[in-house]
Amino acid sequence: MITSTSNGQVKQAAALAKRAKERRQTGLFVVEGRKMYEEAPEDWVEKVYVTEHYIEEYGQPKGSCPWETVTEDVMRAMADTQTPQGILALVRQPRWKMEDVWRGEKPHMIFLETLQDPGNLGTILRAGEGAGLTGVVMNRETADIFNPKVIRSTMGSIYRVPFVYVDDLEPAAREAKSRGIRLFAAHLRGERSYDREDYRDGCGFLIGNEARGLSDDAADLADCWVKIPMLGRVESLNAAVAASVLMYEAARQRRNG
Amino acid sequence: MITSTSNGQVKQAAALAKRAKERRQTGLFVVEGRKMYEEAPEDWVEKVYVTEHYIEEYGQPKGSCPWETVTEDVMRAMADTQTPQGILALVRQPRWKMEDVWRGEKPHMIFLETLQDPGNLGTILRAGEGAGLTGVVMNRETADIFNPKVIRSTMGSIYRVPFVYVDDLEPAAREAKSRGIRLFAAHLRGERSYDREDYRDGCGFLIGNEARGLSDDAADLADCWVKIPMLGRVESLNAAVAASVLMYEAARQRRNG
Repeated sequence: MITSTSNGQVKQAAALAKRAKERRQTGLFVVEGRKMYEEAPEDWVEKVYVTEHYIEEYGQPKGSCPWETVTEDVMRAMADTQTPQGILALVRQPRWKMEDVWRGEKPHMIFLETLQDPGNLGTILRAGEGAGLTGVVMNRETADIFNPKVIRSTMGSIYRVPFVYVDDLEPAAREAKSRGIRLFAAHLRGERSYDREDYRDGCGFLIGNEARGLSDDAADLADCWVKIPMLGRVESLNAAVAASVLMYEAARQRRNG
Repeated sequence: MITSTSNGQVKQAAALAKRAKERRQTGLFVVEGRKMYEEAPEDWVEKVYVTEHYIEEYGQPKGSCPWETVTEDVMRAMADTQTPQGILALVRQPRWKMEDVWRGEKPHMIFLETLQDPGNLGTILRAGEGAGLTGVVMNRETADIFNPKVIRSTMGSIYRVPFVYVDDLEPAAREAKSRGIRLFAAHLRGERSYDREDYRDGCGFLIGNEARGLSDDAADLADCWVKIPMLGRVESLNAAVAASVLMYEAARQRRNG
């Protein structure tokens, strides 16, 4: 049992929760809480830390992954949340390939440019999985997907929706288009309402930064600009809401044939 | 010019940003930043505090509302944000009536039960204004709409979308139904997909707590349970996403007649 908050493993877990650099260098990320631990693919999990209280309530961690008990104090020192649930795992970062994000006959993709809010990124993965998203392509200025806030807000979709970071969205967008994937940009200057386009074949949506929207360069990658009609005096939608409205319209069309 | 962080007005603004009780007792709330200040209806604004830097850049506060300059330090002490934009206003809380939330011939309402996350509440107002929402009814266990995090995430919709808090959702729901407003609950046990229902006449959506969803009592208020079909292993959607998908489907149907 680890009882000291100055133990090296405790410090490593805390550093992984706090710092993107630490996550990049080790290729690990931190998962907290029972649901997020239980949904983790077993072969991604490197190490599990649990409190005795957790074991009493839910039993020992399943499978063959190494695990160790820690005191409540130690758990608090490791965790990113104020009231940790008594289980925390170090998980290996998946390495998706570009083929994974546009897999299948009718890919349904999203391209994110410099999305900054971790909650928005996680929410897009969660909503996206529900809408049948095949994958996400992000530029490196987008928030770190392994940030604990993103992980939490994915509610487990982080394990299932393929994603890749790219230096530049352009080559990825061109490659997608060469595979017959039609790209749509949600754009204030879009003329056609988003629900007037057909998303039943391969499609991808370009979503921009929360404050600035898409850059001109990224918007130019689209085959088609669409608008989400807005009443009242609303100038724009929250990025996760805009992405969800588009992805669920695609899902609706695909469901209804 | 206010130069001391122990000035009574500074303390009041800070208390209004931090505490729901202070907001309830005074009937005021705090608005920060240029956009949120400029969109505030002039007759709601009680007092404006600006830094000299702000005045140099954007000029004096418009209109006849009393205003005062404060030092950068004082602005930081008043504000809820880490890097305040140099303008902060005390604004009178609107007192909407129930008639306001279901105004017009074809009301489009939302009922919130114990929604906890301030970001979700603000995002629903913002997305809702864009979708033509006529108003929001919330139970008192829902987050305080005058919390600065809610205010920020409304992006100004707080000034324009009518809302009321009620002790109990039931009488409000019954009254809405007696006015011909059909109520829909997004429910995991809903059988029909949300896009198979007709929202062109008066409609209202019931949205529940982030973790627990709608209570049985609240779900029973609905005329119809709908589901948002979800692929993959997604169990539920973020509350603001679910609300937005429903509201934009209603907007889509109303637009396309």
